Amino acid sequence: MEFHHVGVATSDAEEFVTVLKDRLGLQIVHEERFDGLRIAFLDLGAGYVEVLEPIGETGPVARFLDRRGQGIHHLALRVNDIVGALSAARTAGARAIDEEPRPGAWGHEVAFLHPDSTGGVLVELVEEGE
Amino acid sequence: MEFHHVGVATSDAEEFVTVLKDRLGLQIVHEERFDGLRIAFLDLGAGYVEVLEPIGETGPVARFLDRRGQGIHHLALRVNDIVGALSAARTAGARAIDEEPRPGAWGHEVAFLHPDSTGGVLVELVEEGE
Repeated sequence: MEFHHVGVATSDAEEFVTVLKDRLGLQIVHEERFDGLRIAFLDLGAGYVEVLEPIGETGPVARFLDRRGQGIHHLALRVNDIVGALSAARTAGARAIDEEPRPGAWGHEVAFLHPDSTGGVLVELVEEGE
Repeated sequence: MEFHHVGVATSDAEEFVTVLKDRLGLQIVHEERFDGLRIAFLDLGAGYVEVLEPIGETGPVARFLDRRGQGIHHLALRVNDIVGALSAARTAGARAIDEEPRPGAWGHEVAFLHPDSTGGVLVELVEEGE
């Protein structure tokens, strides 16, 4: 598995993207609304920062912001075969939040692993589309 | 700036590394004790996961564990010229925890930016050694 992105929860994506652009020189490569979130991906060379702003007051990212405030929400790893990678992780003891891969942002297929089974880190497996 | 690593705080590096190996197939590429921490870097293709276990009960990683528990602690970005990158970030409004770059793990030169000035994300700038 390789690095794909770090997901960061924020209550103001526009302001956070401006900070990443101005202070760290990062550039947006993709933006969309997906699954109740304003999402932006910024280029990190071999991967991305994914900025996540909840549009409403419910959902896992909104709960994360309520509980912990703004900050890094998850680590996403690039896999070539998400069905196989998810199955291998589960066989080895990882607990799946998504029992089957599902459509994610930017046309990806994704599946999350529960942080209780991955050292406190919410891990997302990502297979990019064609 | 490009992805270098994600730093993860843990109270048991050995157990966490075993989880990363067994459940995600990651491999250790570097281990050391540095600055009061047991540290391991695991390969993520273009970068690394850095595992951080405090040896004692004091220091910023121990405080992070007390406050938030195990999980992602910081995002490290690879730069070619850390003096220039730190200066540019500060000029653009980032608050430096390290006013000058300092020696980090694995022979890197590093400087941290305060999360209050980077959207809640503790950002480490990393220039690799020769």
